[in-house]
Amino acid sequence: MPGNSFGHMFRYVTWGESHGPAIGCVVDGVPPRIPLNESDIQQWLDKRRPGQSRFTTQRKEPDTVKILSGVFEGQTTGTPISMVIENVDVRPKDYAAITDKFRPGHADYTYFKKYGIRDPRGGGRASARETAMRVAAGAIARKILGESVVVRGALVQIGTLPVKRERWDWAAVDQNEFWCPDADTVPEWEAYLDGIRKEGSSAGAVIEVVASGVPPGLGEPVYDKLDADLAKAMMSINAVKGVEIGAGFKSASLRGEDNADEIRMRSGVPEFLSNNAGGILGGISTGQDVVVRFAVKPTSSIVTTQQTVTAGGEDTEISVKGRHDPCVGIRAVPVGEAMLAIVLADHLLRHRAQCG
Amino acid sequence: MPGNSFGHMFRYVTWGESHGPAIGCVVDGVPPRIPLNESDIQQWLDKRRPGQSRFTTQRKEPDTVKILSGVFEGQTTGTPISMVIENVDVRPKDYAAITDKFRPGHADYTYFKKYGIRDPRGGGRASARETAMRVAAGAIARKILGESVVVRGALVQIGTLPVKRERWDWAAVDQNEFWCPDADTVPEWEAYLDGIRKEGSSAGAVIEVVASGVPPGLGEPVYDKLDADLAKAMMSINAVKGVEIGAGFKSASLRGEDNADEIRMRSGVPEFLSNNAGGILGGISTGQDVVVRFAVKPTSSIVTTQQTVTAGGEDTEISVKGRHDPCVGIRAVPVGEAMLAIVLADHLLRHRAQCG
Amino acid sequence: MPGNSFGHMFRYVTWGESHGPAIGCVVDGVPPRIPLNESDIQQWLDKRRPGQSRFTTQRKEPDTVKILSGVFEGQTTGTPISMVIENVDVRPKDYAAITDKFRPGHADYTYFKKYGIRDPRGGGRASARETAMRVAAGAIARKILGESVVVRGALVQIGTLPVKRERWDWAAVDQNEFWCPDADTVPEWEAYLDGIRKEGSSAGAVIEVVASGVPPGLGEPVYDKLDADLAKAMMSINAVKGVEIGAGFKSASLRGEDNADEIRMRSGVPEFLSNNAGGILGGISTGQDVVVRFAVKPTSSIVTTQQTVTAGGEDTEISVKGRHDPCVGIRAVPVGEAMLAIVLADHLLRHRAQCG
Amino acid sequence: MPGNSFGHMFRYVTWGESHGPAIGCVVDGVPPRIPLNESDIQQWLDKRRPGQSRFTTQRKEPDTVKILSGVFEGQTTGTPISMVIENVDVRPKDYAAITDKFRPGHADYTYFKKYGIRDPRGGGRASARETAMRVAAGAIARKILGESVVVRGALVQIGTLPVKRERWDWAAVDQNEFWCPDADTVPEWEAYLDGIRKEGSSAGAVIEVVASGVPPGLGEPVYDKLDADLAKAMMSINAVKGVEIGAGFKSASLRGEDNADEIRMRSGVPEFLSNNAGGILGGISTGQDVVVRFAVKPTSSIVTTQQTVTAGGEDTEISVKGRHDPCVGIRAVPVGEAMLAIVLADHLLRHRAQCG
Repeated sequence: MPGNSFGHMFRYVTWGESHGPAIGCVVDGVPPRIPLNESDIQQWLDKRRPGQSRFTTQRKEPDTVKILSGVFEGQTTGTPISMVIENVDVRPKDYAAITDKFRPGHADYTYFKKYGIRDPRGGGRASARETAMRVAAGAIARKILGESVVVRGALVQIGTLPVKRERWDWAAVDQNEFWCPDADTVPEWEAYLDGIRKEGSSAGAVIEVVASGVPPGLGEPVYDKLDADLAKAMMSINAVKGVEIGAGFKSASLRGEDNADEIRMRSGVPEFLSNNAGGILGGISTGQDVVVRFAVKPTSSIVTTQQTVTAGGEDTEISVKGRHDPCVGIRAVPVGEAMLAIVLADHLLRHRAQCG
Repeated sequence: MPGNSFGHMFRYVTWGESHGPAIGCVVDGVPPRIPLNESDIQQWLDKRRPGQSRFTTQRKEPDTVKILSGVFEGQTTGTPISMVIENVDVRPKDYAAITDKFRPGHADYTYFKKYGIRDPRGGGRASARETAMRVAAGAIARKILGESVVVRGALVQIGTLPVKRERWDWAAVDQNEFWCPDADTVPEWEAYLDGIRKEGSSAGAVIEVVASGVPPGLGEPVYDKLDADLAKAMMSINAVKGVEIGAGFKSASLRGEDNADEIRMRSGVPEFLSNNAGGILGGISTGQDVVVRFAVKPTSSIVTTQQTVTAGGEDTEISVKGRHDPCVGIRAVPVGEAMLAIVLADHLLRHRAQCG
Repeated sequence: MPGNSFGHMFRYVTWGESHGPAIGCVVDGVPPRIPLNESDIQQWLDKRRPGQSRFTTQRKEPDTVKILSGVFEGQTTGTPISMVIENVDVRPKDYAAITDKFRPGHADYTYFKKYGIRDPRGGGRASARETAMRVAAGAIARKILGESVVVRGALVQIGTLPVKRERWDWAAVDQNEFWCPDADTVPEWEAYLDGIRKEGSSAGAVIEVVASGVPPGLGEPVYDKLDADLAKAMMSINAVKGVEIGAGFKSASLRGEDNADEIRMRSGVPEFLSNNAGGILGGISTGQDVVVRFAVKPTSSIVTTQQTVTAGGEDTEISVKGRHDPCVGIRAVPVGEAMLAIVLADHLLRHRAQCG
Repeated sequence: MPGNSFGHMFRYVTWGESHGPAIGCVVDGVPPRIPLNESDIQQWLDKRRPGQSRFTTQRKEPDTVKILSGVFEGQTTGTPISMVIENVDVRPKDYAAITDKFRPGHADYTYFKKYGIRDPRGGGRASARETAMRVAAGAIARKILGESVVVRGALVQIGTLPVKRERWDWAAVDQNEFWCPDADTVPEWEAYLDGIRKEGSSAGAVIEVVASGVPPGLGEPVYDKLDADLAKAMMSINAVKGVEIGAGFKSASLRGEDNADEIRMRSGVPEFLSNNAGGILGGISTGQDVVVRFAVKPTSSIVTTQQTVTAGGEDTEISVKGRHDPCVGIRAVPVGEAMLAIVLADHLLRHRAQCG
């Protein structure tokens, strides 16, 4: 299989380059008779949209989505839903100066090695612009999950500065430019990122996405476990270098009795007394919150001069100017949410297929 | 798709329960005319085999693999290769006492919720016994990769004790029971694990697997990126809670210029001056070492008494006796190697399909 | 994807060569809690078993199936079901004389061209022996469909002799060696086939398989239409050269008003007044009988001398002795039934995934 | 998997309804560095385009294709190729009168049963309009196959009138409105179809598509055999009711020695003395012409009044006016060619993956 599709029963393919005429996706397998219109999708795209703060790229894209098929009189019909977003603010000349140089940390080198073609315009498929269509597909996935499942995310670390978990407040997340769940951390991050940007550098980040209300039983052992598919989904996002579930890497240093979540009956139903498992045991959802974290490396496009080589095989140096996010991790929050929703919707349909 | 298969062009399915008559796998898509016999596979199974040290389960399984198809006169024929291992040391009565109780940290609860069936015999499909077939499939994957690609792994942390990376020595790995690359750490781990075991507890671990000699160009953006498929592969291994590539989670706290690997011409070819990328950029291999780490939680089956509930919905307590690894992470090293080899072999064939 | 698997949600892979130690299959995606034991499968294998009449191969295979996984205390568990049949009556020396010659009409030549390997033992994977595992998988598919769906088949033509449709009697099918629905045709076929066999020749056949009680709505337009998947399923059976649905090729010569099945309300539900559609419109089941026919070419292994070449590139002649069916189409009846059941079960689960 | 995709390594998905704003497809897996521009695709669309003769629908669609991604400076880049065609001549009011009635022979009834939604506008996804995108994808498939593989098709029967095979002339095919390879049959078909149309009826057809220059070795036994995938491909085309390879159904009445194609060395290479196999043995291409035929039923939309029922469950009658092809089989010729090219391109890449 070629690699531009994701999911099995809820399955979509994305297409389009960062500086081509448009980007789009086709979502297949959506159950029929689900109310859906463009504004259901636009609201999530607006969250992710670039150019909204000084901490994200200044590229101005309205990111207006159009639905071209699969919806009739406000309802899904069960046929493929094609969505498209025109690229408006395309400036290929920004890239003219670096056409011939491989940007360290970027996919230029590997795309050239793989495909033997150099498409210099803004990273082509490797650009974070592709993630807009993940958000669009994620909006439909949320509709399938319904209102009982709540998927949300937050930024929990920028550079060396994590949030204080004891101050976590979901309500704060929508009230700052960082999706930060800890209002007191916001000014620290602002100062930190302003410094980073002035120095021509960039910062990494850690994102946490959480789904509440997930029914138990989702996940297909032993290879399409819920956590395995989530790991793939998050690692497929641009610049992600690590993924963990629940206690994650910390669980390696816990003792058995501290890690395993004990169970007690509460009001007639089993309840876990902690959630180190991140809502998944044996690759199947437990009914607790599904908790996923992923690390985003610092933006590779920086003004600071770096050593590199040209496609022709000569040593050179590079300083990337363009319009880049000083911390791409910020805009990864809605993307992570979308991928979580997509994996859950896919597994909901798969579970229904086998187990009714 | 149901979930017991892995891979696209190199594709295998595993079957069998921990305490059933046998386990097995069928590998489809193996190129023809590759020399292969049972000892090529047995050597890797012997590495993973339980009952070899006091730090792994005392279950005695010879794990003798038989090839039933797909090989003719010592060569692969291009048709499916069926392999089977008989279960020898099966003691279902070990589980009699706990039939009715959900073991905290185990998949009992979720399998019951998903399938509505309680198969109490040693975890059934959720048992680490399944990983023997991953190792068998991985042995074939290594053959496809050829001798120019070297896949190896090491244990880099047990509980709270990491190895010292400055003392890393691949030669040490095969000379201790832990696959530890740092001989001086071995006695520390022995003492630590003896303590853990006496206290009826268990310990987690971190494993690092590395592939050298990987050609550039492997990986299928934007969803079947090489790192995305590796994340899925590792997270699908029992008890894994986190996966990272190269600098991994640490990259979140690096600055842009410290994270991006600079490039210089060396003897006429581009060479990266560091490997924070873990050998993958934009989801495609760079030609550097592919470096993956994953965290394994502490064994959930412990003697220490824990709170839980019965299938009938009553509060109870549980102390799991059986024959369990105090640190399942140890035996995960050859399994991680196998999954790395499998992902690489699959992507080698996929790349050849599209790019020739 | 390699090619030895079939189905999407009900998915199985087969393995094994005609003259290797065993053949088998692994069925994944079977819903849990379905009563299943080996005799449920054996009864269908017994129908297909060779050596039961003078009109089929004299190879004696008991074809005793063993279930190795996925069933616990007489119920499916939702995990992969592995089934195996040992090859008992293997006589590779029958093939010694023809090792070096390509048998006309056989897959020898193309397997050699594709894989570069010559496995002379009875056709290897290309042997009709593989179809035993289709019948085994089909037995499980029938269980998923339940008793309201009846899948049955009949031989409707041998060589130049079709049955008389006006004498069709399903009860007759099990009362002769040909699965012939028209008792009066049986002696004609016997005489015809005896003649064919004495002359060292062979005969082709046409099989019709029918499923009654299929719910409307099965099929996934526009590529995985129910009829498209049925065409693939039947054409994948050894020696099949044509497939048709309902009126099939005859519909090309019908006029529009004679072909389209009119509809009338009957007891409050729509009823089609004819079934030229073969129970499928737009790739989706209508609720009428699903009717599929397929043509099987005459057995290619014949005693009559034929011109051919050797693997070394020399002209030669060949007369195939061995133990071959004078009409392989006879044993294709239970195989066609199995494939019909498999496609329906797969689509039942797929439909449930998307449409609930 | 949902059903709107086709192929494995060369994989595409189509979207769009007959009377929506546009139709399109996304092709993934195309090898990089293949010269491609819109006119390469447009030339084949022009062949299929409606409104070109009095024997096809009078709907006027320019069918102008736009490429939105995956091509850079006249070359494929290896990333997904998105193509779109706007629907221009949309007249939903043509359907107003029949909104509530199920048209016999159409997919109205089954789509309603499957999805629970009634989209009355011209058949939605079930319309033959979707086949334009098959032709577009097929144009790219031809580019992958290269000039050594020639894929062409002809109409070999309309209604009760077959062509005379002894008069077959490929050069004639492009010189009449029917893709008829026998110039003398053309006036007969004209007269026949004029009569059919005046009587408010319609006619079926048989199409033959042939690929020359196919290398031996393509096809993935035992389920993704080349003929199995071809059968699926053709049967997935609207209104197709039967598919056959080589001698097809006729092979059932041949004797073994008349059916098996004998082999002789010719100029140092094996040559088959006939082609009853249609270029495929054991599901793998032999190197001979691949020959496929399929039957198309008569257009279901006819003026002649038919009995049917309403969605509300009342008996009624229907006479379909609109702008319909009296013989949809005519326009199926380029569609059949496209599907043949697509299957071959997919198998070329798959074969390269496994066998190098």
